[in-house]
Amino acid sequence: MSYDTNNIFARILRGELPCIKLYEDEHTLSFMDIMPQADGHALIISKEPATTLHDLSPEGAAACIQTTQKIARAVEAALDAPGSLVMQLNGAGAGQTVPHVHFHVVPTSIGQLRATPHATNMADPALLEAIAQKIRAQL
Amino acid sequence: MSYDTNNIFARILRGELPCIKLYEDEHTLSFMDIMPQADGHALIISKEPATTLHDLSPEGAAACIQTTQKIARAVEAALDAPGSLVMQLNGAGAGQTVPHVHFHVVPTSIGQLRATPHATNMADPALLEAIAQKIRAQL
Repeated sequence: MSYDTNNIFARILRGELPCIKLYEDEHTLSFMDIMPQADGHALIISKEPATTLHDLSPEGAAACIQTTQKIARAVEAALDAPGSLVMQLNGAGAGQTVPHVHFHVVPTSIGQLRATPHATNMADPALLEAIAQKIRAQL
Repeated sequence: MSYDTNNIFARILRGELPCIKLYEDEHTLSFMDIMPQADGHALIISKEPATTLHDLSPEGAAACIQTTQKIARAVEAALDAPGSLVMQLNGAGAGQTVPHVHFHVVPTSIGQLRATPHATNMADPALLEAIAQKIRAQL
């Protein structure tokens, strides 16, 4: 699949769209999911123009999972969660909606995720920012 | 959480329990999930004695995701799947059942996963081995 340079995560990386940022380093960016599956739902994206995990360099994949470690620890601590799910969907056939490789961190259980309908509405930005502040404080 | 050296993945790593192996390198081992959520469901584990992603070294996490890249590509190709889910559960509160850090690769969609009850029975080992042969041929 050729990379769509106008997907929303590419536009966030270029600063053309806003995000509620949690963390950034040379290779990755983390921000709040605006249609969260649970309070504290965070995303980690690579700065490489890669559609799926398959397209990412091994170094880019390593950077993503290392940022995911940081974010998952902070999300669990900030939300006082009993655990977290890390999810990463490859391909529209798997349910990937934004064609830029991304990792989800959701402080919930797989059972709860199964029982919860997909979010279809944007969360209140003020609520997301309040949660983001708690997560940043744990980083 | 202190690491349980007698969990089943630790025992597989020590060769005390069998597995249907897909791939092994210095830092990781991949094998078929014996209670698959879909045909081709594979697991990737670290050789570090780590309970969750939080306990894994950054290098160990990098090795896991790089093996996951290899396995996800091979599983999709072997099963002619339209995509794949990568999942990693941290903590019993998230639904983690084996207390040794592991990554799931499932060639299905998140919608299908939500709709499918948890597997509770072991799959036919002959069927798993037949699928494993197809995956190994793609590695």
